[in-house]
Amino acid sequence: MRGGQPPASPPTSGGKPPQAPTETTLDTDTRNRMRIERFHIIDSTLREGEQFALAHFTPEQKLQIAQALDDFGVDYMELTSPLASPQSAADLRLMASRPRSFRLLTHVRCNHDDAQLAIDTGVDGVDVLFATSSALRTVSHGYSIDEIIEIGASVVRRITDAGLEARFSSEDSFRSDPDDLLRIYRAIDKARPARVGLADTVGVATPRQVYELVSMVRRNVECDIEFHAHNDTGCAIANALAALEAGASHIDVTVLGIGERNGIVPLGGMIARLLTLQPELVERYDLEMLPQIDAMVAEILGIEVPFNTPVTAANAFHHKAGMHTKAVLADPHAYEVMDPGRFGLERQILAGHRLVGRHAIRDRAALLGIAFDDDQLRAVTNEVKRRSDDGPLANDELDALLMHWAVTKEGVG
Amino acid sequence: MRGGQPPASPPTSGGKPPQAPTETTLDTDTRNRMRIERFHIIDSTLREGEQFALAHFTPEQKLQIAQALDDFGVDYMELTSPLASPQSAADLRLMASRPRSFRLLTHVRCNHDDAQLAIDTGVDGVDVLFATSSALRTVSHGYSIDEIIEIGASVVRRITDAGLEARFSSEDSFRSDPDDLLRIYRAIDKARPARVGLADTVGVATPRQVYELVSMVRRNVECDIEFHAHNDTGCAIANALAALEAGASHIDVTVLGIGERNGIVPLGGMIARLLTLQPELVERYDLEMLPQIDAMVAEILGIEVPFNTPVTAANAFHHKAGMHTKAVLADPHAYEVMDPGRFGLERQILAGHRLVGRHAIRDRAALLGIAFDDDQLRAVTNEVKRRSDDGPLANDELDALLMHWAVTKEGVG
Repeated sequence: MRGGQPPASPPTSGGKPPQAPTETTLDTDTRNRMRIERFHIIDSTLREGEQFALAHFTPEQKLQIAQALDDFGVDYMELTSPLASPQSAADLRLMASRPRSFRLLTHVRCNHDDAQLAIDTGVDGVDVLFATSSALRTVSHGYSIDEIIEIGASVVRRITDAGLEARFSSEDSFRSDPDDLLRIYRAIDKARPARVGLADTVGVATPRQVYELVSMVRRNVECDIEFHAHNDTGCAIANALAALEAGASHIDVTVLGIGERNGIVPLGGMIARLLTLQPELVERYDLEMLPQIDAMVAEILGIEVPFNTPVTAANAFHHKAGMHTKAVLADPHAYEVMDPGRFGLERQILAGHRLVGRHAIRDRAALLGIAFDDDQLRAVTNEVKRRSDDGPLANDELDALLMHWAVTKEGVG
Repeated sequence: MRGGQPPASPPTSGGKPPQAPTETTLDTDTRNRMRIERFHIIDSTLREGEQFALAHFTPEQKLQIAQALDDFGVDYMELTSPLASPQSAADLRLMASRPRSFRLLTHVRCNHDDAQLAIDTGVDGVDVLFATSSALRTVSHGYSIDEIIEIGASVVRRITDAGLEARFSSEDSFRSDPDDLLRIYRAIDKARPARVGLADTVGVATPRQVYELVSMVRRNVECDIEFHAHNDTGCAIANALAALEAGASHIDVTVLGIGERNGIVPLGGMIARLLTLQPELVERYDLEMLPQIDAMVAEILGIEVPFNTPVTAANAFHHKAGMHTKAVLADPHAYEVMDPGRFGLERQILAGHRLVGRHAIRDRAALLGIAFDDDQLRAVTNEVKRRSDDGPLANDELDALLMHWAVTKEGVG
């Protein structure tokens, strides 16, 4: 079964009732924990996600994704700018005309023409962005900090005057001069946006840097703070956590984390991160929908759900090595910080491989009505190890081996 | 610093000539940066990686992976316990008998029988682990803290008395009582192990918690500190960074991050994280081998290199949205914190899609010898957007469109 599918047979411990009360929080370390006050999801699968190299969503797929995320309970969805293409504009207007529970945003450059076109589509809010780092100011637009403030504040006023939520974001915040940033945010804050956004556009920030910068902004503005993190150096989720700890309240995510280059904060990973720390922040979402949402978007894109995806990877709740399965069979909490049942999933104990331990074999045998004594168990476990040295045994092969052993060794229980 | 033998691979200043300062570091924010003193790679692809649900490495594949990682320059490789299966023991002894630059480790339970079997295989070091959290102590082994100390210290002495490096690790460190941990580590340290290991076995720690716990251990032991991080909540790389900042010097990684459940710290992601912060820590490795190493292991496993993988995802250096490509064409550093050339890779500017901007179209046209004027460029860009609203254009389709436009609109340069 090299490279093949996970075992098809039912999970060995499936069907057991979930442990109560939620194993996610009981024993988890509470030291060095920063309390997070608020958490809102801005799903950008249909904006940032469209910037993923392989992404092109048809109008029908956009509606399908939006419906699923609406049912899940995301607070906001951000769609591609109406200036991107004729269909992008049509899709945005269609989405704006439909009933929905999330608030609809679009994302445009920070100028009056773009903002007015966005306002006219019927969205609930407009996200504008301005490059503020010296690197991007030079190659992107050439404006001075004073000009950024003047244009930014008046565009924000145009949006709020139209009765919509405005968000002003500094692109590439973590390579911007912090004094410039503070000057910009304090000035923009006076124009009463719903949020200012900090963006690690290039995926270079560390959690420590995020915490410091967001904390500084938090002390200097009255509006909410949104955070957007790319994953180029693998820290997107941890950076989003640091932003929340420092007082940000809105996190940009996409399904699976798709976006420019190797993407941004994934919806499922963000949920997993907060569930183990402050479950009350994410309990209002329909967590059981997460696996189907990830699978749906992966299928649309023609990719696998990556094996390293928190929660929804096929193997996220698989237990393999003997020491792990021994402990998990005694108490799932031993090696699980989240109950898979919270996501409508079941753990699997993998037994047909050479890393197997006696407890996993005993458990598998019990499903077949076989009870080996200790010596038999040791012997049959060694036999499984020896046989699977040439490759994993499928569950039916393993079961046949256990049955055979039970009969020929007179070990039937 | 004590901590046993120096790693077998050359020190940071050895090997390749140091690069002139690259774009990875020039403008990157230097605020809130913690200086990391040392970084050594313990690659566990052939131990932790074997615990990935889909992994079963043949002897030939193990040698192939080890050879590639030896050429890359990993400092250590850890292989599955010889107690796991007959072939596991044979593979370990074979690896121990072969010439190599990395130091060879294996990983066994902390008892004398297992340790002696490990010593007898000819490895350079033995990693022992003991569950220290109350959750795991109960369901895993049932020993008291005093018993853990007594057994642990004597096993460490057995290993060091045999002339090998010993590492003692506390499994599930972040759900262990910190007073227990300190007591254990201080006592074990007196037995002169090369390293003590902290393990976020269940993937629940935050960077802040890691920094605090590792800092505390750093103040209380003389030996080196190793860190092992699972990725259940998406923070493995950030947690490893926090450990290094707090004084750990050895990080467990696997190729692509494969391991139990959704895995651990990926080799490539760890490299990317440090390259943007302190490139001197990773310059001694053959970074250009990273794409082929990730691709090789993915192929063996029958999986894709996940799209979200730093550096080696097919799309990690793809630029798509108009604002991004405009800036990247002017200065790649605008949206890249690492030079893809450092990894033998090239950036790609995607132009045949509806998010395209004028600059990407101008660049593509220039490749065809076409120079549009500003009005033509605007018009042809809009035409590309309109056409690709139905789906992306392949490069040959895009080129045909540009050529056709250039001829019929008399825009040939």
